[in-house]
Amino acid sequence: MSILITDIGELVTNDPAVDGLLGIRRGAAIVLDEGRIAWVGDATAAPAADTVVDAAGRAVLPGFVDSHSHLVFAGDRAEEFRARMAGESYAAGGIRTTVAATRAASDDELAANVARLVAEMQAQGTTTVEIKSGYGLSVVDEARSLEVAARFTDETTFLGAHVVPQEYADDPAGYVALVTGEMLAAAAPHARWIDVFCETGAFDADQARAVLTAGAAAGLKGRLHANQLGPGPGVALATELGLTAVDHCTYLTDDDVAALRDSGTIATLLPGVEFSTRQPYPDARRLIDAGVRVAIASDCNPGSCYTSSIPLCIALAVREMGMTPVEAVRAATAGGAAALGRADVGSIVEGGRGDVVLLEAASHVHLAYRPGVPLVRRVWAGGVEVSAARRG
Amino acid sequence: MSILITDIGELVTNDPAVDGLLGIRRGAAIVLDEGRIAWVGDATAAPAADTVVDAAGRAVLPGFVDSHSHLVFAGDRAEEFRARMAGESYAAGGIRTTVAATRAASDDELAANVARLVAEMQAQGTTTVEIKSGYGLSVVDEARSLEVAARFTDETTFLGAHVVPQEYADDPAGYVALVTGEMLAAAAPHARWIDVFCETGAFDADQARAVLTAGAAAGLKGRLHANQLGPGPGVALATELGLTAVDHCTYLTDDDVAALRDSGTIATLLPGVEFSTRQPYPDARRLIDAGVRVAIASDCNPGSCYTSSIPLCIALAVREMGMTPVEAVRAATAGGAAALGRADVGSIVEGGRGDVVLLEAASHVHLAYRPGVPLVRRVWAGGVEVSAARRG
Ligand SMILES: [Zn+2]
Ligand SMILES: [Zn+2]
Repeated sequence: MSILITDIGELVTNDPAVDGLLGIRRGAAIVLDEGRIAWVGDATAAPAADTVVDAAGRAVLPGFVDSHSHLVFAGDRAEEFRARMAGESYAAGGIRTTVAATRAASDDELAANVARLVAEMQAQGTTTVEIKSGYGLSVVDEARSLEVAARFTDETTFLGAHVVPQEYADDPAGYVALVTGEMLAAAAPHARWIDVFCETGAFDADQARAVLTAGAAAGLKGRLHANQLGPGPGVALATELGLTAVDHCTYLTDDDVAALRDSGTIATLLPGVEFSTRQPYPDARRLIDAGVRVAIASDCNPGSCYTSSIPLCIALAVREMGMTPVEAVRAATAGGAAALGRADVGSIVEGGRGDVVLLEAASHVHLAYRPGVPLVRRVWAGGVEVSAARRG
Repeated sequence: MSILITDIGELVTNDPAVDGLLGIRRGAAIVLDEGRIAWVGDATAAPAADTVVDAAGRAVLPGFVDSHSHLVFAGDRAEEFRARMAGESYAAGGIRTTVAATRAASDDELAANVARLVAEMQAQGTTTVEIKSGYGLSVVDEARSLEVAARFTDETTFLGAHVVPQEYADDPAGYVALVTGEMLAAAAPHARWIDVFCETGAFDADQARAVLTAGAAAGLKGRLHANQLGPGPGVALATELGLTAVDHCTYLTDDDVAALRDSGTIATLLPGVEFSTRQPYPDARRLIDAGVRVAIASDCNPGSCYTSSIPLCIALAVREMGMTPVEAVRAATAGGAAALGRADVGSIVEGGRGDVVLLEAASHVHLAYRPGVPLVRRVWAGGVEVSAARRG
C-alpha cells in the first residue's frame, strides 16, 4: 500500500543536499511504501501510488523525535504543581510520590499509562520517543518499567540513578552499588541506553561515572541529565566520555560550551521543564552561536514537566531560548535523531523511515507563530497513518 | 434529544451556591436538553436521558468564553513573526498588510477563514467568541467584516478605530469623523459592541471618547483596548464611562487599579499577545489582590497573537501572570462571560446554555499542568456536540 502525499507547499526534508538548515523544498511530493520514504521529488514528477493524499499547499515535516521522556509511572502530581505555582510550600513527597505509585501499579496499569501518553504524543506529531525508567528504583521495578517501555519503543533508557530512593537515604553508595550491579543486570536486557541524574542532591560526578562505566560494560550507551539546577560537573563528564547527548544544559560555563562544541555531544534542551517550574530557560542562542549541536525534547514526566507536546516545546524554544523557528524545528527532528544516534529518522529522504507529519498550516513557522493550537493534522509512523481518534 | 453526562469526577459549575471560586462538585452529572443545562446534581440521582455519556471520572467545565478576538481577516504574517522573534527589523507593513489582504478578499474568503478559526476554537473548548472587525477600515469593508462575523456569533464588535488607515495618515481627525459617522452607520446594524485601540500611535483619549460616545448613541456598548504598550488614559476612560470591559491592562497606575476595582469594569488579560511579542505580561496577581475582576481571552489575530487556544492562555496565566489554576479557569469562563455581560454562559447551572467541555483529565488543574497538550476531549455548544473532526 504505497501512499503519495502531493501538493506539499513546504516540505521540510533536513536533507543536506537541499539548501538551508531545514532543506526546504516547495511544490514537492513524497511516496511512502513498505514503511519507508520511497520517493521525494517535485509534485509534477510524482509517480503513481495506491493512495493519494492532497496536502493542498500545506507543510509536511519529518515526524518529531522526542529524545527524552519519562513515561513509565503511575498517578499524577497536579496538586504539587498547583502548590508550586502558588508559591506554597508543599510537604508531600515529590518524586517519591511517583515512585510509590509506580511500585504499587501493575505492569498492565503502567503499560496503559504509557500507551495513553504515546498516543497523545503521536497525535501531536511525535513518531520516535525515548522512554526512561527511573520511578521503580528497585531491581524488580526498574526491570519491569523497562520491559513495559520496550513494548512501545526501541529507545529505552535505564535510569535507576534518577534519585536515591528513601530506603537507601542513609546509604547512597550502597544504592550506586545496587544500580551498577544487580539492577543493571536486570535492566540491561530491556534497555539501549543508561542515564544518570547528575546534579547536586542526586548523583555526583564520581557516582555518575561509575554508573555510566558499568552501563557501558553491560552494552548500554550513555546519556546524562546535567547542569539543570545549577553549575555542575555533568556536562564536562558527558563530553569527556563522548556521550551521544547530555540533557538540560541550563547552567554552563564557557568551558562547558567549548567542550560541547568540541565533543559533538548533543545538548538536549527541555524548555517544557522551565515553563512548568518557573526556572530560567537554557540559552540556546549561546550554544548554537558557539557551534554546539542542540536537540529539543519534552522531558514528559509527572513532576517537573507534564507536557507531551513537541509543538509547544518549539514555540517555547523560539519565545524563550532565542532560537529561530528553523532552528527549533531542526532541533526537534534531526536534532532529536542525532541525540539518539539515529540516521533513519528526523529527516525526509529516500530510504528513511516513513515518519511524516502534515500540518494544518502552510509553513513550519506556524508551530511557533500559533502556540498551543493543535496544528498537527495527520501523522504517519513507519508509513502507516496514526489514528487521530485519540484527540477526538 | 436529552444528553446525560455522568460520572463526572470534577464538575466546574461557577455556581455561587456551591463552595469555592469554581463551584466544584464531585461525582456529579448534568443533563443537556433543548440547548440548555436542564439538570445538575449528584450522579447517583441523575434522571434518565436519550443519550448517556460516561465521563469516567474526568473533569467537565463550562465552555470557554473568549471575549476578545479578531478573526475577520485574510492572509497571515508568519514572516513578520519570524523576523520579530529573530530581532530583525522588518520593513513590511505590519497591520497594513492585513488590511490590504482583507480588503482584497471576497466575503466568502473572509467567512471561510472565520469558519476555520471558529472551528479550531471550538475544538479547543471555546463555545462563545467575540469577533471584532478592524481590518477593513473603510465603510464598506468594516460593514462587510461585521456582516461576516455576525454569521458566527452574536458578540460582534465594530473596531473601525483599530488604527488610522494609510489613506488618512495625514488626516486622523477626518478618519475619526468617518468612523463616528458613515462607517458607524453602516456597521451598527451588524454589531453589538464598539471598541477603540486607545494607545500612543493609535487613538488618544479624546478620540476614543468620541468614538465610544457616538457608538453609544447608535446603540452599541463600549469596550476598549488600552494600556497595552505603555501607561495611558484608556483604563481611566473605560472606568469613567463604566464600560463592561477594558482589555490588555499591562501598564497600570495604582489609580487605574483602584478605578477598575471601584467601577467593576472587567480587566481582560490577553497573555498570548505577550507570549507572541516577547513583551512583559500584565500583573494579574496585583489586579486580583486589589479586588479587580479579570477575564482571560485569546486576542486571536494574525499580527500580535495568532493563537486560538484558551487552554494555552490559561497555562500562560498561571506561569506568567501569577494566577492560580482556579483563578485562570474562572477568568476564561465566568470572567469572559462577565466581560461580555452574559449571564447565560460561562457556568454550568440549570437554565444556562448547554455549553460544556469534557477534558481528557481528572481536573481543571491539568490545563496548566499539561501545557500545550490538547486536553479537550469533547465539546457541546448549545447542547449539541461539536465535531472533533477538524482536529483530525
Ligand atoms: Zn528528564
Ligand atoms: Zn485585540
